[in-house]
Amino acid sequence: MNAEIIAIGSELLTPFRQDTNSLALTAKLNELGIELDFKSVIGDRRSDLINAARIAFGRADIIIFMGGLGPTEDDLTREAVAESLGLALRRDPRLEEELRARFAAHGWKMADNNLQQADVIAGAEVLANARGTAPGQFLRAEFRGKQKVVMLLPGPPHEILPMFDGACVERLRSIAPPRNIATRVLRIAMVGESLADKRAAAIYKEHSDVQTTILAGAGEVQFHLRAQAASQAKAQKAVDTLASKLEDEFEEAVFSAHGESLEQIVGYYLQMRSATLAVAESCTGGMLAQRITSVPGSSRYFLGGAIVYDNSLKSDLAGVPPLLIAEHGAVSEQVAAALAEGIRERCKASMGAGITGIAGPGGGTEQKPVGLVFIAIADDSGTEVVERRFPGDRDRIRLYATQLALDTIRRKLM
Amino acid sequence: MNAEIIAIGSELLTPFRQDTNSLALTAKLNELGIELDFKSVIGDRRSDLINAARIAFGRADIIIFMGGLGPTEDDLTREAVAESLGLALRRDPRLEEELRARFAAHGWKMADNNLQQADVIAGAEVLANARGTAPGQFLRAEFRGKQKVVMLLPGPPHEILPMFDGACVERLRSIAPPRNIATRVLRIAMVGESLADKRAAAIYKEHSDVQTTILAGAGEVQFHLRAQAASQAKAQKAVDTLASKLEDEFEEAVFSAHGESLEQIVGYYLQMRSATLAVAESCTGGMLAQRITSVPGSSRYFLGGAIVYDNSLKSDLAGVPPLLIAEHGAVSEQVAAALAEGIRERCKASMGAGITGIAGPGGGTEQKPVGLVFIAIADDSGTEVVERRFPGDRDRIRLYATQLALDTIRRKLM
Repeated sequence: MNAEIIAIGSELLTPFRQDTNSLALTAKLNELGIELDFKSVIGDRRSDLINAARIAFGRADIIIFMGGLGPTEDDLTREAVAESLGLALRRDPRLEEELRARFAAHGWKMADNNLQQADVIAGAEVLANARGTAPGQFLRAEFRGKQKVVMLLPGPPHEILPMFDGACVERLRSIAPPRNIATRVLRIAMVGESLADKRAAAIYKEHSDVQTTILAGAGEVQFHLRAQAASQAKAQKAVDTLASKLEDEFEEAVFSAHGESLEQIVGYYLQMRSATLAVAESCTGGMLAQRITSVPGSSRYFLGGAIVYDNSLKSDLAGVPPLLIAEHGAVSEQVAAALAEGIRERCKASMGAGITGIAGPGGGTEQKPVGLVFIAIADDSGTEVVERRFPGDRDRIRLYATQLALDTIRRKLM
Repeated sequence: MNAEIIAIGSELLTPFRQDTNSLALTAKLNELGIELDFKSVIGDRRSDLINAARIAFGRADIIIFMGGLGPTEDDLTREAVAESLGLALRRDPRLEEELRARFAAHGWKMADNNLQQADVIAGAEVLANARGTAPGQFLRAEFRGKQKVVMLLPGPPHEILPMFDGACVERLRSIAPPRNIATRVLRIAMVGESLADKRAAAIYKEHSDVQTTILAGAGEVQFHLRAQAASQAKAQKAVDTLASKLEDEFEEAVFSAHGESLEQIVGYYLQMRSATLAVAESCTGGMLAQRITSVPGSSRYFLGGAIVYDNSLKSDLAGVPPLLIAEHGAVSEQVAAALAEGIRERCKASMGAGITGIAGPGGGTEQKPVGLVFIAIADDSGTEVVERRFPGDRDRIRLYATQLALDTIRRKLM
């Protein structure tokens, strides 16, 4: 069974607001074995709503309408869905009474338009709204000879999520065929998306029982694996088998076999080795430290370090000899190594990381172009320096540089 | 004229990813007087894509496809749009050559599937992609007797936004009827949303000629003003008049009257005063420095500083007397002040900032709970310390702390 989510409200078509409910709903649908195939955002225009509803009824089995259930004249979801299904809309006397009682209890005067919240589509079950005045509706209806499951749910996150959990999940479970679903997430660092895709494709083509999604971010590729089988054990085995083959293919490029972030993994390794880390950052300006310290409990292995934007601080805070900077330039293999070694010593850490580079947009030269970054990692075994030239803008170059630094730390700790 | 944006990619139908490009594109469309009436998200299934394209061509004048232009077999946008319009798809020899040259220049091996990025819909103009390998396409085509404007743009934000600005805005301006629209964005720091809304509502109710939207983020409220009028001067005057009244109401809480970020504004002030800044961060772990250095050219006023997670580094790198830490605790007014003063001296900066606090989730006590943060700013005029207890999780507490630090620096420089 597949689903479509339709978010309703003109404010969701401005540059300022975005539907976020659908992500949480998607996770819950997937757990029930229901795939989300379409998402739409429609404004508060009656004809647009009716057309969008008909399109959805024509292509999905389960259709979830979010929003447009309030008391204002812009709240047209009930009307539009009833009309698109050719069903009547009737005022429910009990709901009307509850609404009147609710307003009376608060001592509020009720405007007549509030009563439209008591309108129910013929055949729909009413879903109580514990956090607001607009009840939801759940119905099974026929559209062009096919059975559809239709939900009308309120827009505010604190109303829709409890209503979905409390009233919709069980109803869907009794409708959707029972499924055994297992998932795994593998993450690899510093491998390009198309190369990763090509290498993986050859492997997962032999595993048509596992659904794979490739996601690529800055310096990272994720493989999301998902299998459905006759038993939970079989589903788990299917994803685990494919995950193992992908781990064999990408070897030590796989930094995470169960979805953990690179920052978390680096933290695990440092703790496992009872090691501590200090950093000296030039072009990344604190981003590496910020990522490392985003992990709760990172104070157990991360000591701190220096942001050495100004050259004099490379010497004063991280002990880089001024002559080394004069001779090789601040952006050089030698200075990166001296930063890593100097900050390690200064902070009495078991491992030191140094980053120097040109994040741009200005400051590049022919010999040292924008995007050029040197990363050094120093520990008892010596100092390793990596040189890379990253494409993209300032943000991207900085993000890539921190990603490569984290990955180099991880590899050194393996 | 109205528009539809179609975001393409199965990953956008998972619980993990969301289209965010459409927000920026909507702002740019609105500036041209083009309203966004529909947004859709479609997976990588050919038939779904073709159907969604046909639906969009049937209801919108301008249709923007985002994503699905990459090198993998899941990248079907070119094919699907060509088919839904009944147009041919041809491999462009020049694009093919450029692709090969690009890969060669980086010393990358090109997989064959990359060549589909050279396929162009008949009649389309090719839009160069400065940040990636997939070019965009812009075409005017007929659908059921009506003229449509169609764009195929890459999905990654750092690719689509420059391409839209550089290649699409001018083309759209020549097509869309001219409109006189003026916008302004006022940003205020560290004022709660409901209070800001209440104070502003009384003012903008008298300005029905200006459309206003209030947005609240972590430690920031934004007023987005937009007016359309018979002339550009009148539209501008309408937004400027309302903006002035809002500036009078919120006084020095307004940090930006034309949309600039707090980091940028702090940079302007520092340069204006020929001042330099150094930071010593404990709980924010580099986030303050990272935000400051996200601004290009920040090396003109930002020297660097220290990340002092470990207490010994508070002394070694920022000169905080160990006894002060022993007496008052690392999270204290005294240590914050000493961090600011110490790092200022150590870095020979005209201004020093110190942050110490408890970001959580662990480490809180009854006397010093999670969320407690001390921020100190030191300069020639003395040291100012601010104490706050922020709500929320680790990320939010750290973000709020950097926001308050930047705002305190700004106020001290005013």
